[in-house]
Amino acid sequence: MEALKSFEDLLQRYLDRKDRKRVVIVCPNDDHTEYVVRRCAEANLVDLTLVLDGNESEGLKNFCRSISPTSIRCVRCGDVAEAAKAGVRIVYNGEADVLMKGSLNTDTLLHAVIDKDGGHGLIEPGKVMSHVTLVEAPAYHKLLMVSDVAVIPNPNCQQFEAMIGYDCEIGRKLGIASPKIALIHFTEKINPRFQVTTDYESLKQMARDGRFGKVSIGGPMDVKTACDAESARLKKIGSDVVGDADVLIMPDLEAGNTFYKTVSYFGNARMAGLVTGTTSPVVVASRADSAESKFYSLIFACLAS
Amino acid sequence: MEALKSFEDLLQRYLDRKDRKRVVIVCPNDDHTEYVVRRCAEANLVDLTLVLDGNESEGLKNFCRSISPTSIRCVRCGDVAEAAKAGVRIVYNGEADVLMKGSLNTDTLLHAVIDKDGGHGLIEPGKVMSHVTLVEAPAYHKLLMVSDVAVIPNPNCQQFEAMIGYDCEIGRKLGIASPKIALIHFTEKINPRFQVTTDYESLKQMARDGRFGKVSIGGPMDVKTACDAESARLKKIGSDVVGDADVLIMPDLEAGNTFYKTVSYFGNARMAGLVTGTTSPVVVASRADSAESKFYSLIFACLAS
Repeated sequence: MEALKSFEDLLQRYLDRKDRKRVVIVCPNDDHTEYVVRRCAEANLVDLTLVLDGNESEGLKNFCRSISPTSIRCVRCGDVAEAAKAGVRIVYNGEADVLMKGSLNTDTLLHAVIDKDGGHGLIEPGKVMSHVTLVEAPAYHKLLMVSDVAVIPNPNCQQFEAMIGYDCEIGRKLGIASPKIALIHFTEKINPRFQVTTDYESLKQMARDGRFGKVSIGGPMDVKTACDAESARLKKIGSDVVGDADVLIMPDLEAGNTFYKTVSYFGNARMAGLVTGTTSPVVVASRADSAESKFYSLIFACLAS
Repeated sequence: MEALKSFEDLLQRYLDRKDRKRVVIVCPNDDHTEYVVRRCAEANLVDLTLVLDGNESEGLKNFCRSISPTSIRCVRCGDVAEAAKAGVRIVYNGEADVLMKGSLNTDTLLHAVIDKDGGHGLIEPGKVMSHVTLVEAPAYHKLLMVSDVAVIPNPNCQQFEAMIGYDCEIGRKLGIASPKIALIHFTEKINPRFQVTTDYESLKQMARDGRFGKVSIGGPMDVKTACDAESARLKKIGSDVVGDADVLIMPDLEAGNTFYKTVSYFGNARMAGLVTGTTSPVVVASRADSAESKFYSLIFACLAS
């Protein structure tokens, strides 16, 4: 299957699949989330459930009234915490495939997603929760997945293993039969001084043992080597990952966040993202993300579900 | 003084200063270093001393013979290690202002620069050695200094203090009277869970106490907040550093290297760099750096010396 080059390709792939998804959006009270609701409804992309806490705009209320009552289902709650719980419960009960955060604190939604005491959350005990970002960068020849730019500050080997597993699974759902995974570090050598590099060695062994299915895995290598064939040629590194990575595994959250912000601002990239490790994809785009970024995060989640 | 916007501005500032520098280049045996020698000599920019190990090209030999014997001084050595030592000794003796690596291993040159046993190195006992990169990114409105993308894996507070001191001093030599320094992290809060953020708090106190002279210092903040006024406005962070940083202090080398490679490849940036903490600037550009990058690193070093 051809590699996805743009977010428009991503949307087209979702449409081509003809596998319509059911989406719950909690507290769509801000302009950007409202844009997502309207765009999905107008193009009739998904089945929508809106969990409302009463703070949604008059415009959104009118919009919901104006369209067929079967295309958008509304659930009303007393406050934000209740709305978060209600949204999670709908997914937990199998009535929706994707959960999306609107205008509420990420912690409030994730608290309900984890639901430590209630046992009705979206994460199984002992499962690693992580995050994957999808990057559409003008400089790169295809979409690029990156973990983790948001959740785990200093991943240990087990957490790296989980991330790679999730990203392989999602990559295959996007149509990448054998994902090319670059393990990012500032050196190219395994060095016991840097724990991450010895973890990388273990992860490569797991890949050889078939732990991640059909996959190419390379590293440690830097971001440029992973993405720029010319730089890789100069450095004389032979691996089918270099210059053509589908997935970057970042060594820590400092590097992950720095990549995210740098490629976005300096590289003029568009970004989408979702929480991984949950039983269903969860979109927790931040206030600063654009309306478009939120929309494509939702489409990414629909394809990943 | 107006902010430098491009590497051409950097060269013009060097010329405007009319403070001609003396430069030693060790083993100019590769095409890129040879380009630097030729460009400097042809434009008559610096006094050049070449330390040769006999592996320089015929072309370079002819070039040296063809020009006036007083503009390039050649010193011949038996091998690379001897050449490294000879280059360092010329700077140590006060006969040159800047040391530049050609085609030899960085470790070989730095070994001579540190000269632990000989006592004729370019670093005083107890001094922190670090690195500063100068970035010319099309997305940004001025040149940007970044530390440390090359030397210190996990800086401690004393090392951060040294980096900031060096970068302020170099910034002022470039014409920035009161450098704006952004302390980079993935959060915006001081959090004892992340040692770097408490170090940042101490560094801000040092700045208030006058440790770095006239300076603005802000953070923790992410790379985008430091460089993008719009993103800063959305996040409602008030500081005169946000959106207008002159210097980024990276929390670790993972983030530093990731920034360097990402802004270079995805952001189409040009880069120059030098080692800091030495008694004279040392340029140790890597094999993969372009000829132009090596040339502007040398000009950067001349301005910083």
